[in-house]
Amino acid sequence: MATAEFWYEFASTYSYPAAMRVAEFAASRGVALAWRPFLLGPIFAVQGWRDSPFNIYPAKGRYMWRDLERICDALGLPLKRPDPFPQNSLLAARVALALEGERRTDFSRRVYAAEFSEGLTISDRAVIASVLAKAGLDPQDVLGRAESDANKALLKMESARAAELGIIGAPCLVTEDGEVFWGNDRLEQGLDWAAGRGA
Amino acid sequence: MATAEFWYEFASTYSYPAAMRVAEFAASRGVALAWRPFLLGPIFAVQGWRDSPFNIYPAKGRYMWRDLERICDALGLPLKRPDPFPQNSLLAARVALALEGERRTDFSRRVYAAEFSEGLTISDRAVIASVLAKAGLDPQDVLGRAESDANKALLKMESARAAELGIIGAPCLVTEDGEVFWGNDRLEQGLDWAAGRGA
Repeated sequence: MATAEFWYEFASTYSYPAAMRVAEFAASRGVALAWRPFLLGPIFAVQGWRDSPFNIYPAKGRYMWRDLERICDALGLPLKRPDPFPQNSLLAARVALALEGERRTDFSRRVYAAEFSEGLTISDRAVIASVLAKAGLDPQDVLGRAESDANKALLKMESARAAELGIIGAPCLVTEDGEVFWGNDRLEQGLDWAAGRGA
Repeated sequence: MATAEFWYEFASTYSYPAAMRVAEFAASRGVALAWRPFLLGPIFAVQGWRDSPFNIYPAKGRYMWRDLERICDALGLPLKRPDPFPQNSLLAARVALALEGERRTDFSRRVYAAEFSEGLTISDRAVIASVLAKAGLDPQDVLGRAESDANKALLKMESARAAELGIIGAPCLVTEDGEVFWGNDRLEQGLDWAAGRGA
């Protein structure tokens, strides 16, 4: 079966619609997806950015919010601008990484909904604990594993791996042959490539 | 009839495939297109960029060239990387602005082909003169009008207008109601909006 990796960052705006629609698109093309949460912070730091480029360059930020609004409207997704933006996504990323398979996918989508549909603060332990409980998981147990030294180190490795792959933003689809497709607007192309139709 | 503006910059890589395919897409949706050449330089300068962001951020540049290669492959467009990149697009933009209607469109596509299919230097007067001659125009006459004070001033106004519209990159589709769709990958969405299907 064809496979692809879906690299996403919880603070990333375009990762929100992508996370909400990628599974269905992948299934329709027969592509098995591995969900890989990572942090963009270290990658942005290499570019000299200590904040989101959408804040550093206000005109770019204005364009992005309007673009995202149109995208969410077209998908019927509610959109609430998180405050502060970007959210600190460290805890959510650690938790996602501590979960596997469907649990990771389900948790990740719930985090995006909490952040961008409800406007909740995802760096807040209580918010993440509540998302875990609603997903039918034991918050104490999962948070404990998420904050283990091993899992923290694993997340650092994942972010380093993302940089190695040439990932410079989120979301990205990465195919088995190492092609990187950046952006919610490249999901279809990346999945077609993964399914062997784009090669 | 629905209308939209196609804003493009001759130095812009993604403007190349966009210029080659936008007319057909617009016609199929019944949208009349106004082609508006402009310069990104003044807009980038406001962001503090004195070079293409694809040069300032090499990882971004590497991604863009591979992405563009895939896009051109899919469209059957040859791709030769201009050297130097970006090209100085001032002369080409002035000439495009001095032409009207189909002449502007035809000249603009020929410039993109010279630059990105053949790898010619579009700041070279002889290259632009040859493009004009092949388009059936009188190079001396057109170059004279292109370099008149009035036309030079007009190009400055066009670039200022682009900034006012919220344009931060090229290409952009701008609809009658002021929506800006940035990128070769937003052409369809922008044209659908212009045609009233996206509203």
